[in-house]
Amino acid sequence: MSPETVSPASSYPPADLPPARARELFRGGTRVPTSGYSNGYAQANLLCLPRDLAFDFLLFAQRNPRSCPVLDVTEPGEVSASVFDGDLRTDLPAYRVYRDGEYVEERSEVTDLWREDLVSFLIGCSFTFETPLLEAGVPVRHIETGGNVAMYETNRPCRPAGRFRGPLVVSMRPIPAHQVADAVRITSRYPAVHGAPVHVGDPSALGIEDLTRPDYGDPVEVREGEIPVFWACGVTPQAAVMASAPEFAIGHAPGHMAITDVRDSTYQVP
Amino acid sequence: MSPETVSPASSYPPADLPPARARELFRGGTRVPTSGYSNGYAQANLLCLPRDLAFDFLLFAQRNPRSCPVLDVTEPGEVSASVFDGDLRTDLPAYRVYRDGEYVEERSEVTDLWREDLVSFLIGCSFTFETPLLEAGVPVRHIETGGNVAMYETNRPCRPAGRFRGPLVVSMRPIPAHQVADAVRITSRYPAVHGAPVHVGDPSALGIEDLTRPDYGDPVEVREGEIPVFWACGVTPQAAVMASAPEFAIGHAPGHMAITDVRDSTYQVP
Repeated sequence: MSPETVSPASSYPPADLPPARARELFRGGTRVPTSGYSNGYAQANLLCLPRDLAFDFLLFAQRNPRSCPVLDVTEPGEVSASVFDGDLRTDLPAYRVYRDGEYVEERSEVTDLWREDLVSFLIGCSFTFETPLLEAGVPVRHIETGGNVAMYETNRPCRPAGRFRGPLVVSMRPIPAHQVADAVRITSRYPAVHGAPVHVGDPSALGIEDLTRPDYGDPVEVREGEIPVFWACGVTPQAAVMASAPEFAIGHAPGHMAITDVRDSTYQVP
Repeated sequence: MSPETVSPASSYPPADLPPARARELFRGGTRVPTSGYSNGYAQANLLCLPRDLAFDFLLFAQRNPRSCPVLDVTEPGEVSASVFDGDLRTDLPAYRVYRDGEYVEERSEVTDLWREDLVSFLIGCSFTFETPLLEAGVPVRHIETGGNVAMYETNRPCRPAGRFRGPLVVSMRPIPAHQVADAVRITSRYPAVHGAPVHVGDPSALGIEDLTRPDYGDPVEVREGEIPVFWACGVTPQAAVMASAPEFAIGHAPGHMAITDVRDSTYQVP
């Protein structure tokens, strides 16, 4: 194949897209959840905040490492990161914009909203350990169905820090009862992308009243013989933005992640 | 034993001292390295910085997690921490004071230097994994000899952040060649207290010219059949202070740590 005839990104199956090609696709306007994209590469949650709030948020993340495992932090105004060789303003499928803690809009890029004082936080995402789950034969329903993962705000408060407080947000995957132990064992090896579940079973203990009505993402069916398993979720920072009302913030749209250039295995512990 | 006749802290062997009693001893003026104290409890490096430098340092720590694993960060002015139910100004055996990056004095307490804008960082210390090493039969020379661990500045730069930059500092333990793999395996399970070695063998590759002349702590003999094994060290933040010259900083005296109330096992990964 000559250089002139490189296939367009859209001709790859999503799982096989190299990160740069996936970002190219999203930069071009493709607006889909990224679960199942670029297998083997870590995905990340995004939160961009003004510099004067950066310490409080970094401390919030440090105090809540299960939900906010920090993979990278940019210098103010920078639009790429050591783990993300793209443009943070355009290369995610979708973004959410917050003013004074209010979610004001979702959009496909944020170039015209960019400010030189924005510090970007890249936070580990549980989509990262879905490849090892699948490889071990543990099914991941929302990949099977091509939808977004189901996410819920819980009744568990995060440990506050400075101006930031808010509830723990979790993602849910229905796991066959005989594979729950495998799912725990496998995901516990990836603490930088949320690690082991925070809860197995009983949604009501987390204050989740109706599994069919997630706060973010799509409903995911829990079938006979399956247990709902809950992992800490990188939407927690955006729930903190809504609870804490910083003047301005940009996040990824839930499930529409930053695809990094870092291999999953980099974040695996022995 | 009636409450009136509780033994003084000094009557315990150091390894058996509960953390609160060890801190009482140090508050009373005992000035010794803490390696071998309060077995089973994590120890921590201390760095106190003015609030306006706190983000830059927290980011430096986030970017250099092997040498600067953050266990806890206080609110400005606070003198205790969630992992340390004592007084950070008095309950370590010794402190170092820096002005404009110059090391100006070592002292046994810092109460009269305290400022309401000081944010304290507690950073994991490799003394924490010495108990599991000993339990596995891996000798720890500086505990055998009752001295301080040997620490060296290396030629490896840390990843800078804001106003902070500086070299990686390492601690060295001589390990019998047939037990090096055990030492790697055991310490890799404790990433929050520096984890696996950064280097095994050849000191010159780290820019260390003479093992008998450590930059901090005491020289430790490497015997026939032993390999010098190097772990990232929590003195790295103080080397960054000297390289970066913040107006004011307080650290622990190398080897004279904060003994926390947290069990070693809390920081163990599967």
